[in-house]
Amino acid sequence: MQYKPNRLIGIFLLFVLSYATAQENIGQREKVKITSPLIDQQDQVTFNLFAPEAKEVFVQGNWNDKKQEMKKVDGVWTLTTEALQSDLYLYSFIVDQVKIQDPLNIYQMRDVNTNFSYFITGGNQSKAYTINDVAHGTVSKRWYASPTLGTTRRMTVYTPPNYEEGKQKYPVLYLLHGMGGDEEAWETLGRATQILDNLIAEGKVKPMIVVMPNGHTSNQAAPGESAKGLYPVEFMLPDVGTSDMERSFIDIIQFVESNYRVKKEKASRAIAGLSMGGSHTLFISSYLNNYFDYVGLFSAAFRLRANNESPVYTEFESNLERQKKNGYKLYWIGMGKTDFLYKIGEDYRKKLDAIQMPYTYRESEGGHTWSNWRLYLTEFLPQLF
Amino acid sequence: MQYKPNRLIGIFLLFVLSYATAQENIGQREKVKITSPLIDQQDQVTFNLFAPEAKEVFVQGNWNDKKQEMKKVDGVWTLTTEALQSDLYLYSFIVDQVKIQDPLNIYQMRDVNTNFSYFITGGNQSKAYTINDVAHGTVSKRWYASPTLGTTRRMTVYTPPNYEEGKQKYPVLYLLHGMGGDEEAWETLGRATQILDNLIAEGKVKPMIVVMPNGHTSNQAAPGESAKGLYPVEFMLPDVGTSDMERSFIDIIQFVESNYRVKKEKASRAIAGLSMGGSHTLFISSYLNNYFDYVGLFSAAFRLRANNESPVYTEFESNLERQKKNGYKLYWIGMGKTDFLYKIGEDYRKKLDAIQMPYTYRESEGGHTWSNWRLYLTEFLPQLF
Repeated sequence: MQYKPNRLIGIFLLFVLSYATAQENIGQREKVKITSPLIDQQDQVTFNLFAPEAKEVFVQGNWNDKKQEMKKVDGVWTLTTEALQSDLYLYSFIVDQVKIQDPLNIYQMRDVNTNFSYFITGGNQSKAYTINDVAHGTVSKRWYASPTLGTTRRMTVYTPPNYEEGKQKYPVLYLLHGMGGDEEAWETLGRATQILDNLIAEGKVKPMIVVMPNGHTSNQAAPGESAKGLYPVEFMLPDVGTSDMERSFIDIIQFVESNYRVKKEKASRAIAGLSMGGSHTLFISSYLNNYFDYVGLFSAAFRLRANNESPVYTEFESNLERQKKNGYKLYWIGMGKTDFLYKIGEDYRKKLDAIQMPYTYRESEGGHTWSNWRLYLTEFLPQLF
Repeated sequence: MQYKPNRLIGIFLLFVLSYATAQENIGQREKVKITSPLIDQQDQVTFNLFAPEAKEVFVQGNWNDKKQEMKKVDGVWTLTTEALQSDLYLYSFIVDQVKIQDPLNIYQMRDVNTNFSYFITGGNQSKAYTINDVAHGTVSKRWYASPTLGTTRRMTVYTPPNYEEGKQKYPVLYLLHGMGGDEEAWETLGRATQILDNLIAEGKVKPMIVVMPNGHTSNQAAPGESAKGLYPVEFMLPDVGTSDMERSFIDIIQFVESNYRVKKEKASRAIAGLSMGGSHTLFISSYLNNYFDYVGLFSAAFRLRANNESPVYTEFESNLERQKKNGYKLYWIGMGKTDFLYKIGEDYRKKLDAIQMPYTYRESEGGHTWSNWRLYLTEFLPQLF
């Protein structure tokens, strides 16, 4: 077979046409020539949906409490938001009662049991969330054995740029998700990888390893990532407040300290978590009361069940006293003004005040949201190690 | 603050309600009480979509050439397929001309520039695609420098179970994607991680490292994973046939051999790719004609552009002669009977016959599909190392 340019171009076109018919979406996009979402210089965002037969279309996004009705122009439903703050946003369309992702936006992520489309606006805060031309760390999905639970489980591990090439030992942050999350949540919704890469590149954050385990101890891994298979994900509940996460946490520390080049000392260990993960953080750091010099409670829940008499909970007061006595460098509490756990947090701070246990308190606008948890992470990280 | 069971249960319920209102989908699911997809013992699959206002709903899946019309029963559109073969399937719904993923199925993956819902039927072949209770390898997203291209790029790396704990050195398979893919394609659509875990656990495949680079050299990474940001993904074309992937491949080998515990010898290197990645494999293995003992061409394209006079292409005949002379253990060609590249493959085999270059040929049913590429991987892997 000799090279025959005309023939090869023919093959090439055949290739293209083959793909075009296999992926009908491409044809539709070319026909309609619309894009969604479009973000302008003022961070006003325009959504477009080609749905000529629909009677009623809404966009529902987490920049607004209410769903917003879109207008139909030549078969294309459209809406432009006001200027949005610098952040990452999730949204859906509701087309005649059916909730869908934006068919023109391939960027999606799962929150609890729903897939959402997402976008990132410009501005200062979101610079930490975008991928920039900086050195990138490695993100791994790794399985570890938990002798306490008698099972193997999956974690996400961030190792900083140049970790693999060097011989340096690193400090470790254990970063825990909330009740609706799993070992993928901080990586996707939390943009932890991007935040670490960007703040390390700016010299604001020390290079560190970040370990993101799965806090639902009856699951080995995120939905679809274990031998449970592709099961329908309902609301996750039974794992909360069993003390299994707290009791088995030592397995995670031991695994990390045996398998990564890390500094094995209190001054080089941090733990933080959001909501249920804040509850885990609070109880783990008091149970293992001489392990962590840095503790972060992000919109933390307190104990979520009362029917478990594990020493993790029953000895909490004395453990907390021990933690205070053993000493630490930072006990950081972040809470949004409109968070439904605000009162819980206030009571917990009173408790700490009563025993004169020092902490740093950061009150932000807003509520129980990933917007706050990403913000807290960008503020917490520079204070570590 | 003392433990007050009633109060804590109240907090707990508040928690649940908060999530339930934030995630409207949960409410809808409870109201309608439907599940989709449902796979029965005979691998007949039932889809359900609650869309009471819709006039016309189709399911379009890759088990059928045509979209299939669904029937409306009490506001729920439904369809049951015939018994499907053992495989992973992608599908969408088309609701009054709008193509959507199944809102009740959280399991989705991207193919080229479209997100699809997916499911896996039972049976023998798909046992290699599901996650089973076996030891799991680690999957990493890793950045490497390419001096030839003057940039950093992202790859997916599979390391086998116990890689991190041991001191053993492993062989390496370089596994390349097609024109519509990127460094995520073999992991998601190709189920490479599951196939490796399962076949290694069965003792059918030797533990190995699998490196899945990005074959579009003008991109650093998959859509949304580089500093290009969240751009709309159109059909990817300009990178094809530039010889950049072939010329820069040595950077990948050198990076892997400097950064992983691998055997640095021809007998421990394999390369395989599908479609465009088959073309890459063919030219890389002839250009670096004494590097690989194992070569796999899955539905391989041949040269995709004729306007590039790189020695990778112009010296192909003499390189192929050298590759033959240097020797190798396996040159495996897989092709589907109805593949649009069938004739190209036939011509290429004639070329190999003419120079008496040995190869193994596997002709399967079907065409240019992931179903075939997953199948070829399960057949190719046991022959390596």
